[in-house]
Amino acid sequence: MRTVGPVKIISPYIEDQVKVPLATYETPLWASTNRGAKVSREAGGIHAVIVDERMTRSVLFEASDAATALQIVREVQTRQEEIAAVIAKTSRFTKLLEINFQIVGNLLYLRLECSTGDAAGHNMTTNAADHVMNWMLAQYKKLRYISVSGNFCVDKKVSAVNGILGRGKYVIAEINISRTICEQILKTTPEKIVELNIKKNLLGTNIAGGVRTANAHFANILLALYLATGQDVANIIEGSQGFVHTELRNNELYFSVTLPSVIVGTIGAGKELEFVRDNLEMLDCLAEREIGENARRLAIIVAATVLCGELSLLAALTNQGELMRTHLSLERGTSINE
Amino acid sequence: MRTVGPVKIISPYIEDQVKVPLATYETPLWASTNRGAKVSREAGGIHAVIVDERMTRSVLFEASDAATALQIVREVQTRQEEIAAVIAKTSRFTKLLEINFQIVGNLLYLRLECSTGDAAGHNMTTNAADHVMNWMLAQYKKLRYISVSGNFCVDKKVSAVNGILGRGKYVIAEINISRTICEQILKTTPEKIVELNIKKNLLGTNIAGGVRTANAHFANILLALYLATGQDVANIIEGSQGFVHTELRNNELYFSVTLPSVIVGTIGAGKELEFVRDNLEMLDCLAEREIGENARRLAIIVAATVLCGELSLLAALTNQGELMRTHLSLERGTSINE
Amino acid sequence: MRTVGPVKIISPYIEDQVKVPLATYETPLWASTNRGAKVSREAGGIHAVIVDERMTRSVLFEASDAATALQIVREVQTRQEEIAAVIAKTSRFTKLLEINFQIVGNLLYLRLECSTGDAAGHNMTTNAADHVMNWMLAQYKKLRYISVSGNFCVDKKVSAVNGILGRGKYVIAEINISRTICEQILKTTPEKIVELNIKKNLLGTNIAGGVRTANAHFANILLALYLATGQDVANIIEGSQGFVHTELRNNELYFSVTLPSVIVGTIGAGKELEFVRDNLEMLDCLAEREIGENARRLAIIVAATVLCGELSLLAALTNQGELMRTHLSLERGTSINE
Amino acid sequence: MRTVGPVKIISPYIEDQVKVPLATYETPLWASTNRGAKVSREAGGIHAVIVDERMTRSVLFEASDAATALQIVREVQTRQEEIAAVIAKTSRFTKLLEINFQIVGNLLYLRLECSTGDAAGHNMTTNAADHVMNWMLAQYKKLRYISVSGNFCVDKKVSAVNGILGRGKYVIAEINISRTICEQILKTTPEKIVELNIKKNLLGTNIAGGVRTANAHFANILLALYLATGQDVANIIEGSQGFVHTELRNNELYFSVTLPSVIVGTIGAGKELEFVRDNLEMLDCLAEREIGENARRLAIIVAATVLCGELSLLAALTNQGELMRTHLSLERGTSINE
Repeated sequence: MRTVGPVKIISPYIEDQVKVPLATYETPLWASTNRGAKVSREAGGIHAVIVDERMTRSVLFEASDAATALQIVREVQTRQEEIAAVIAKTSRFTKLLEINFQIVGNLLYLRLECSTGDAAGHNMTTNAADHVMNWMLAQYKKLRYISVSGNFCVDKKVSAVNGILGRGKYVIAEINISRTICEQILKTTPEKIVELNIKKNLLGTNIAGGVRTANAHFANILLALYLATGQDVANIIEGSQGFVHTELRNNELYFSVTLPSVIVGTIGAGKELEFVRDNLEMLDCLAEREIGENARRLAIIVAATVLCGELSLLAALTNQGELMRTHLSLERGTSINE
Repeated sequence: MRTVGPVKIISPYIEDQVKVPLATYETPLWASTNRGAKVSREAGGIHAVIVDERMTRSVLFEASDAATALQIVREVQTRQEEIAAVIAKTSRFTKLLEINFQIVGNLLYLRLECSTGDAAGHNMTTNAADHVMNWMLAQYKKLRYISVSGNFCVDKKVSAVNGILGRGKYVIAEINISRTICEQILKTTPEKIVELNIKKNLLGTNIAGGVRTANAHFANILLALYLATGQDVANIIEGSQGFVHTELRNNELYFSVTLPSVIVGTIGAGKELEFVRDNLEMLDCLAEREIGENARRLAIIVAATVLCGELSLLAALTNQGELMRTHLSLERGTSINE
Repeated sequence: MRTVGPVKIISPYIEDQVKVPLATYETPLWASTNRGAKVSREAGGIHAVIVDERMTRSVLFEASDAATALQIVREVQTRQEEIAAVIAKTSRFTKLLEINFQIVGNLLYLRLECSTGDAAGHNMTTNAADHVMNWMLAQYKKLRYISVSGNFCVDKKVSAVNGILGRGKYVIAEINISRTICEQILKTTPEKIVELNIKKNLLGTNIAGGVRTANAHFANILLALYLATGQDVANIIEGSQGFVHTELRNNELYFSVTLPSVIVGTIGAGKELEFVRDNLEMLDCLAEREIGENARRLAIIVAATVLCGELSLLAALTNQGELMRTHLSLERGTSINE
Repeated sequence: MRTVGPVKIISPYIEDQVKVPLATYETPLWASTNRGAKVSREAGGIHAVIVDERMTRSVLFEASDAATALQIVREVQTRQEEIAAVIAKTSRFTKLLEINFQIVGNLLYLRLECSTGDAAGHNMTTNAADHVMNWMLAQYKKLRYISVSGNFCVDKKVSAVNGILGRGKYVIAEINISRTICEQILKTTPEKIVELNIKKNLLGTNIAGGVRTANAHFANILLALYLATGQDVANIIEGSQGFVHTELRNNELYFSVTLPSVIVGTIGAGKELEFVRDNLEMLDCLAEREIGENARRLAIIVAATVLCGELSLLAALTNQGELMRTHLSLERGTSINE
């Protein structure tokens, strides 16, 4: 683990420079992210917003036939307040936001979507789902229990549903970088970054059969930060499904990362470890704030750091041979991991 | 980190019982995987095979037009031995296996696929790619460098290409479990496991928009083992794209996990850490063996452990409320992570 | 073009036996679908329901940055009634149902979802989108026009969004078939159909990298019916993304097809052709009914016919050599098209 | 049906101007494609190449376990000549090109890939697959028949495998268009087309959860041409999965369409119809040529016409309101279909 930065961030949650702890076996990541952080400071800061936040669990029932499943869904849609009340009893921090559903034949997948305060909320949502299932099975005798998780949630697996209906925090971070900074710090030009993003992240991922993905290595930075802050680390899978959008604007580089599924919390499992608490404190994510604000602050920091790491790697890739040279000098040839 | 098992494994690489170290913030994973390990011992062992192995990097060139790109590909296909020689010079362990390609407009994506001995091989393949690019650019003046990675590789991102053309070790692990063991250890029946797999892993993932994915939580076990053995952990993303296939057979449960992209090595970055060496030694993956055999042994252990964890979770999900109860008792309600 | 059936259907829209016109170059489809139709009559009828219906168009704007785009979305969400009014003025049959959105960097995709009466509604929704864009650009000077279609709609392309958020009519058709009928008409058993669906439609499609798809040849029947009834035929692309779910139930075969995107209308472009009118009349889809009921009736017929065709092909595939033999006898070896 | 063009094409198969028949219910398609054809003539012609061609069928077997399946695959890989001989006996035009495979648990999917002369080859490949299955089941008593099609082929369904391993003809068509032509004929600028392609076709499709797709309406033109030339029309589904790549080059517009799965033939089912023969003759695709050349010529025409249609629609979309106005004037408001 090493600390990089500071990253300069401007958002409703932070106007500050933040030093960020990254835990990784891939040591060149530190230098690379540091370069991005330097850009963030020189270019006036990374702007970031949170578009949405929710944690989900899809319960799975079976009815005798589709008509019965449909009829029950229709009724459930009119009884959302009752279900919200069932959920509210499981924790004062778990609040029902929305119920989405799918019916396949006689199978009914209900996707419960909740806000969960400063916790990532896996546990809280599963607990809520358990209680909703009990309530449903009591109310609708025609339903049969199949599973408290029907994979329409969906946890730690690639999907399209998480980005479309939401899971975790949907964060966008963006920055405008002058040509001079591109040239001096990143050793590249705005045009080269724009070109590479189109040909590698957009087209290349597309032919690889990627789904809702257009980036080089969001996953590396997510991993390092999730490890350092005690997150449920396998959620980097959803996290890896995000987009870089960049363009030339007034002769400058507009560079953005969009992360629809940042799944982080500042309380819950893993947060009791001492080094995790230290790291969260360093990030100022354990302060007395309104419910949810610490977790939002953390999500913003995650997105801004992802921007730093992504920008630096893309810049390196625009120059033939740079990636390999850097890795060789930083780790004496032991590893290059995109 | 805690050690679970032993897991009983029968394969060309192991006929043994292996204790497995799992590093995770999600503590109920230990008990759950242990239950699966018990089944492996009682049911006569998990059988495992490796179907394929390779590490990949897709370089990206640009030609003036598609005809030029195509003509160069055609020529390159007749000069594979020269390219193999270029690669062979980069390391005595890196060997070219195959070159696949895609052309989009005037863009040429060449996917270099190599064997890399006991290393996962990110570094070795990128280094090889670097040299191949230099050679290509010298041979074909009509090509322009775009990127040493064109995302048709594809590293740490969801895709279809990795499973179809191969990346990492393609491992299948399977076991036959008697009805009695299902009932006594797993508290379920073969029928319930089969049903759940269809309705959750196959259909549920499908409606979620998953790609080449049909499982409950391969990612959790991969994460814990990759962390414990110093792997490039973000490769759990490819790893999470795998399949459970199970059916009722002679009144018993046939249960299999198919993992097309287990990306592990026993040498390389991360392996120099002391606890990593200890873990690899405990797994007997640092012995004097033929090149590649240690890494294969590790991949088999990974797949067998994934089977244990997946089986146990699916069994738990067949019983209403069991998942939550177990988590609550194991971690006093701090977390449930599918 | 030939007429098959009658297909026996039981739904809120039909309790009847319907003869169905199929226009195709693949002549064995007639015999195959006819066999399914016979099953529908012998087994007591196909039950069908409509889960949802909407037509969509996603407009695409650009803002200066994500924060601006988000702020406008937040405001738009409070002004849905105004937008509904804008849309209502474009046609008395176009009604706003919902607005979904995505923000990527500074790009704003608004997915307008409308009901469109008995028309498929491509035209009506694009017209509505045009007017909404004009209104938006007048209200929010910070937005810039990019496109009236931003591919988050999405028309005639594979996607996950159409199934998850809805596009066209979401129809489920199901039937229970006795073992005797399976054996006598379909020359197979319930067990064989269930097994084939798992191994081919679910697992096979999954390894092929399919998305939200698990069937054998929905597309063939959709094509033949869309051609015969003057639909926008390229919408078979969305239509092909549907699911077969089947299981053994009380020693009988439960067989269902789920089609999330049946895009059909009984008025609009193509419906003025004489043979189209004849066909729609034969299907009793031009009667005086409440708005939308003719189109719903047609969608139900489509789904029921798809069930007939799918069931018959799957049955044939369970017997080694049957598919080829049938095609050879029906068209003297000219074509086999799954 | 109406004839558009001529389209000016330059390729190994055509150096000519070709009039193209389009059968569609969506009448504005004619005018739109005509505009693109005019650009093709003014800008010096569309260049097109065929990258690959093959037709596929994946047979599905079951073994007792993965090790057995793997052992058989290994053996089959050494016996490809025998399998090629089995296939060669089924037709003198069907030739084995490659065998790809996947193993999931104990299931074995073999993807047989053949060249099929001037036929699209559905029938020929299924027939070949039938014979290969018979041979395999005779040679390997441990295999059990599951299906002659295991959906790893995959026909008329969305997938990633068809583009990655190949199915149908993989065609690329491209053109360079001067700024003047962009402005005068297309009423737009190179910059606007490039921008729209990135924001709609690449990013928009990505967030929609599209797979290996980046275009606006390839499907419309494919449909019209497949209908007019007697193709298996439902193959527009694979066909719709293709890419637009475009960029500004020396102040001109480089515009390309890449279609990995154009599935067309000039003989076989559907080709016996009189209007089909007339159309194929008009396209000069029934001449005495070497085997396969007529079908290749047709595939080139398809790709070039797709380019015309795509270019014209994208140009229209860059101007606010143009799409709707054009449709209204062309069909008095009856339909707009992307």
